Amino acid sequence: MVLNTKNKFNTACIFYMLFFSITIFAQQPADFVNPLIGTSNYGAAFPGPIAPRGMASISPFNVAGVKNTPMEKDSQWLSNPYVNENTFLTGFSQVNLSGVGCPELGVILLMPTTGAVETNHLKYGSTYSKEVAKAAYYSVNIDKYKIKAEFTASKRVGVSRFTFPKGESNLLLNLGLGLTNEEGAMVKVVSPTEIEGMRSVGSFCYNSPEEAYPVYFVAKFSKPADKFGVWKKPSKYEGVEAQWMTYNGKTRMMENTIKTVVGDSIGTYFSYKFDKEETVEVKIGVSYVSIANARENLEQETGNKSFDAVYKETYDEWNAALSKILVEGGSKDDKTIFYTALYHTLIHPNTLNDFNGEYPEIKRSKVGKTKGTRYTVFSLWDTYRNLHQLMSLVYPKQQSNMVKSMLEMYDENGWLPKWELNSTETFTMVGDPASIVIADTYLKGIRDFDVQKAYKAMLKGADQIENNPLRPGLKEYIQKGYLTTDNKGPVSTTQEYNASDYSISLLAKALGKKDDAERFKNRSLSYRKLYDKNLKLLRPRTADGKWYEPFDPVSGANFEENVGFIEGNAWQYAFMMPHDIKGLIKLMGGEKAFSSQLQKVFDSKQFDMANEPDIAYPYLFNYIKGEEYKSQELVKKLVQEYFQNKPKGLPGNDDTGTMSAWLVYSMMGIYPISPGDPVYTITTPMFDKVTIKLDSEYYQKESIVIEKEGNKEGKINAIQIDGKALNSYFISHEDLVNGKILKVIQK
Amino acid sequence: MVLNTKNKFNTACIFYMLFFSITIFAQQPADFVNPLIGTSNYGAAFPGPIAPRGMASISPFNVAGVKNTPMEKDSQWLSNPYVNENTFLTGFSQVNLSGVGCPELGVILLMPTTGAVETNHLKYGSTYSKEVAKAAYYSVNIDKYKIKAEFTASKRVGVSRFTFPKGESNLLLNLGLGLTNEEGAMVKVVSPTEIEGMRSVGSFCYNSPEEAYPVYFVAKFSKPADKFGVWKKPSKYEGVEAQWMTYNGKTRMMENTIKTVVGDSIGTYFSYKFDKEETVEVKIGVSYVSIANARENLEQETGNKSFDAVYKETYDEWNAALSKILVEGGSKDDKTIFYTALYHTLIHPNTLNDFNGEYPEIKRSKVGKTKGTRYTVFSLWDTYRNLHQLMSLVYPKQQSNMVKSMLEMYDENGWLPKWELNSTETFTMVGDPASIVIADTYLKGIRDFDVQKAYKAMLKGADQIENNPLRPGLKEYIQKGYLTTDNKGPVSTTQEYNASDYSISLLAKALGKKDDAERFKNRSLSYRKLYDKNLKLLRPRTADGKWYEPFDPVSGANFEENVGFIEGNAWQYAFMMPHDIKGLIKLMGGEKAFSSQLQKVFDSKQFDMANEPDIAYPYLFNYIKGEEYKSQELVKKLVQEYFQNKPKGLPGNDDTGTMSAWLVYSMMGIYPISPGDPVYTITTPMFDKVTIKLDSEYYQKESIVIEKEGNKEGKINAIQIDGKALNSYFISHEDLVNGKILKVIQK
Repeated sequence: MVLNTKNKFNTACIFYMLFFSITIFAQQPADFVNPLIGTSNYGAAFPGPIAPRGMASISPFNVAGVKNTPMEKDSQWLSNPYVNENTFLTGFSQVNLSGVGCPELGVILLMPTTGAVETNHLKYGSTYSKEVAKAAYYSVNIDKYKIKAEFTASKRVGVSRFTFPKGESNLLLNLGLGLTNEEGAMVKVVSPTEIEGMRSVGSFCYNSPEEAYPVYFVAKFSKPADKFGVWKKPSKYEGVEAQWMTYNGKTRMMENTIKTVVGDSIGTYFSYKFDKEETVEVKIGVSYVSIANARENLEQETGNKSFDAVYKETYDEWNAALSKILVEGGSKDDKTIFYTALYHTLIHPNTLNDFNGEYPEIKRSKVGKTKGTRYTVFSLWDTYRNLHQLMSLVYPKQQSNMVKSMLEMYDENGWLPKWELNSTETFTMVGDPASIVIADTYLKGIRDFDVQKAYKAMLKGADQIENNPLRPGLKEYIQKGYLTTDNKGPVSTTQEYNASDYSISLLAKALGKKDDAERFKNRSLSYRKLYDKNLKLLRPRTADGKWYEPFDPVSGANFEENVGFIEGNAWQYAFMMPHDIKGLIKLMGGEKAFSSQLQKVFDSKQFDMANEPDIAYPYLFNYIKGEEYKSQELVKKLVQEYFQNKPKGLPGNDDTGTMSAWLVYSMMGIYPISPGDPVYTITTPMFDKVTIKLDSEYYQKESIVIEKEGNKEGKINAIQIDGKALNSYFISHEDLVNGKILKVIQK
Repeated sequence: MVLNTKNKFNTACIFYMLFFSITIFAQQPADFVNPLIGTSNYGAAFPGPIAPRGMASISPFNVAGVKNTPMEKDSQWLSNPYVNENTFLTGFSQVNLSGVGCPELGVILLMPTTGAVETNHLKYGSTYSKEVAKAAYYSVNIDKYKIKAEFTASKRVGVSRFTFPKGESNLLLNLGLGLTNEEGAMVKVVSPTEIEGMRSVGSFCYNSPEEAYPVYFVAKFSKPADKFGVWKKPSKYEGVEAQWMTYNGKTRMMENTIKTVVGDSIGTYFSYKFDKEETVEVKIGVSYVSIANARENLEQETGNKSFDAVYKETYDEWNAALSKILVEGGSKDDKTIFYTALYHTLIHPNTLNDFNGEYPEIKRSKVGKTKGTRYTVFSLWDTYRNLHQLMSLVYPKQQSNMVKSMLEMYDENGWLPKWELNSTETFTMVGDPASIVIADTYLKGIRDFDVQKAYKAMLKGADQIENNPLRPGLKEYIQKGYLTTDNKGPVSTTQEYNASDYSISLLAKALGKKDDAERFKNRSLSYRKLYDKNLKLLRPRTADGKWYEPFDPVSGANFEENVGFIEGNAWQYAFMMPHDIKGLIKLMGGEKAFSSQLQKVFDSKQFDMANEPDIAYPYLFNYIKGEEYKSQELVKKLVQEYFQNKPKGLPGNDDTGTMSAWLVYSMMGIYPISPGDPVYTITTPMFDKVTIKLDSEYYQKESIVIEKEGNKEGKINAIQIDGKALNSYFISHEDLVNGKILKVIQK
């Protein structure tokens, strides 16, 4: 009987292992993901596990402490919990942002140690080795303690597994240390296997501290601690009292306490005494609503599941999501950068709602409840350009829910989002990009949202002169057609407003609102008033309408602050009117002048692959008949130069997947050239064959195929859609999704 | 019909008002309570409302801020939330200690203001006027805002009523400011009528910061706020980041938030806009277990009750408690100081358990549940001398529960308490006084507790040489009979151990443990080895047995630190062996020498009425036949000099009612001269007649009467018990409670 049971177990186990191995080692799309890409060169990605659009994630945290830390978090404006070059590890953070430009989250740091409890991260930190980073899995050896640490995650729960050597071991949960600028935490040890608490986060980009908010958590341990406690390092008293307070400012160890402890610098320790090598699994559920919800998230998603079971589920989820695009041909590195990029586009916007549907509304006074998914982290100034277009094509259900989330924000807050983060409006960057995203979605046929409400919301952002948080300077913009130097980044902000107005005009047209369509079409062209014929560039004007003097078109590169442009200079914004490239060509005096000026951007090294304004420039030669090969060459060159299967393999901040979406599109050979316009421009695909599976809820065909034929290194000679010649380098979304095969033939 | 209803209402109303007026204005014992007594001269009492042995209490908080604040809390070692001389009010604290010597609690500060929300207490503070302080009621006018503030309390709930003028008004709940040295709080606005949170407290006497613990609270408002929010003043960042953080260290206003906020300096504001004068009632329930329990305490005790209804109930409870002793004759001031003193003895020890019976156990890892009352705040070095004796006589049920609470602490912690405060052992002061209290209780016939466990606990404290937190230096004490100068306060600590050993010997005898009785009796006399015949005083010895040199018997007065004695000098401890006064008389060379030496204490102004060691000295002339009149004179003089119907009407720290218990006994004409010994010594009562109602659960007679006859200003000529002459100035507890009338006849 006993034997029998054992045999059964072994059989099941072997079967499971086989199954598992096959799933993992068969070079599925998920197997090509290398989460280390973007963890250097300010890519700001993190290498640890996350589920698709997960709320929880785990990142090794190696940016604190001077020793062995070339990029220390407090020594510069650093926006990531992990930098590949750093070597001093101080824990594993349980909520993280990917590819953003400001420090935020990177808190609730779990750290295994051995020996006596040490609570100072500068002392308990360690070097590490043997990093393994895969979709849904990260592992590392912690040198100082000879501990193997492994991590996976479900949507709202981070799962850690530590293999401790024999002897005294500890699991520290540090609630003081973190990437965010915000401080303050609360913790309560519920039992020797459970901790609950919260950590304050917020002040993204050093803004809006009054919007700070809590991330709640519950941590469950697979083995009860032999000893536990809370530490607190209080702030230092001054004055007469300090002389009686012998403990003033010193870390205190509160052993065995089950009482709530609060403070800026607190943490818990769970200590074990093992008489042989042992593993401990820790599940940390998070929530932005309450501790109770964090606990429910944990129970519902990971309940009694083992580490391996959670990993398997999340891996499968990744694989299913990534398999929506299948690529053939191309090198292993090509596939790696492609699927890693696609992976990066599936991190943000991420899930905000708890398992039970609850989420904090964007004004603080209410908890909302969704039946679908409430998304958060809308870095719209970045993502309006290509990421949402990719979602509409490949993951239309998600894109639809993202639009619904944006409309919920409008309901809650009175405004569409601009740069929304965990239900706070950070008002980072400029422009009114939500309108573009919504119009683009609708015009691509994804219409299962309240478009009338959306339209109303857009008009409010576009027309309300007073107290308009989305479009400061709107009065001047409407009166003069442009913002003057009385405003921040007046030229580029004018361009952003133009872009939004163009999208509104497109949607107005589709909705049969002719007057609005006309009005916003006209408004969208007003950038022309900032066109300086002599410079062939846009140039800021002062309040009296004169050109701003002295004007240096080069000033503003590399994020330098300048008069006229946000995060860029006159060259990097010169062609950022994708909806009116034909108008711009005329303005510049014809195709030759346009082409020459565009070429100058690249020749003079003004092109910046690392930021969004000029991100579509490489494709603009497609507008000049006979010069399309330049786009083909440029795109290929840029991919090779900036996107690599290396930690520094992103050109800079991934910007919540925008750079990655650029890569995904560029490698597939199409690009959504004009946000809002349901149109793609075409270049050489970097794979022999790309199959995009379409969602039958939104599209009629099962899939799109993009094929490359002929000389792999040659120029495009012909383009066919379902065998019929396409006499253009542009194809509408409708034609694409209703065609079956887009064939690019090279000579 | 309408008229009829109105009539009914009026009749009910008038009836109620009459009833209420009668209750309040009929000069019941509770009407004599003046809570302002002890609010100056370091009495450390607070003037606000509390229920008998209440967990919650409300005190005006006027010790913060330099302006108009002669006694600023951070400028000295100040142990009270209110000082009568101060004039700058910054709120009303919701948990407070009465008559202690170290700063603690004095937190959760509710403050009404008008106009714009101001969160800096130095700015929003105000002078005040028209203070009314009564049992269960305190009211004051807040000058700056023309707000009338009234307060009452049930056992676990503070109830405030504010009458606001027309216009904008605010209720601030400041969780940063406080008397405690501990910092850190959490708060969450649940709705426009409810706030929940916690405040860290602890580090009593600047000790044991690792024992810091939370007081949880729920606040309910009778009117929903028109606006609300949380403020937070974060600590200041330094380094590179500070340059981007324009808000660094500045108070932030988090409007409308329902999210949890933590920090050292946080608070909430509830704002109103009134178009006429309006009142708002605020109920704040507290708990040391959880927010849920604080809410349950609030609901169960005050649910839908009005301010007036809560006041009425608590007033009635006070009156019932105080009516256990009825006094006749004496001036109004006499009655006032008497009933106020009795009131002060009924504040601590106070209730720790929640309405549902839960309380934090004295080790942090468990929540206990009691069916009776779990008491806390055992300042036993003070209260073993007379307060518990008073409880045994007048409130034996309470005393029994206090003993049970002490035994629970032994169960939880392994040791009897020493200076227990909200389930933390502060280890303040010296000695092992719990044994004395328990023995005294048992020997007075209050025996409904597990005396065998109690005895075992006492023996552990008395005999365990190693790791004994109650009796440091025990090994030396047992070996040599005394502590040497290697220890802190070796002489007085030896005396304390002697006193405890004597009580243990008494209990051992009662339990039939003859050997122990003999052993501890012998141990209790070892102070004699420290008697310096030349000085006729006790004197410290060094480790080698020699007298400590140079020795100044006067050094140590006024709490000055010295070698030999804790909080006192050789004179103030010279007679602190109440169990062996006869032995001391012999030691000193007879009655004359004893009397002369005792008289010297008073003549040389070494007697300190403000601290416990010499508190029984005035009664010691009763041991010398023919000199008892000196005790009568001294006691009377001291009462007149130190106890008055004025804020400075206590000699110093009330020491959780010990000074007040001294007064109650002294005014009744009896005093428990030898703690542990069930015996009283007799002096002139200060009333014509004192009736002590006895609890039928513990005593056979219904009451004791102490009467004074003859010349009111004269000396005692004769004492009778139930008409029979008592040929002694001492009477056993048994004789007293079984007699009916103790008559003191003066000539």
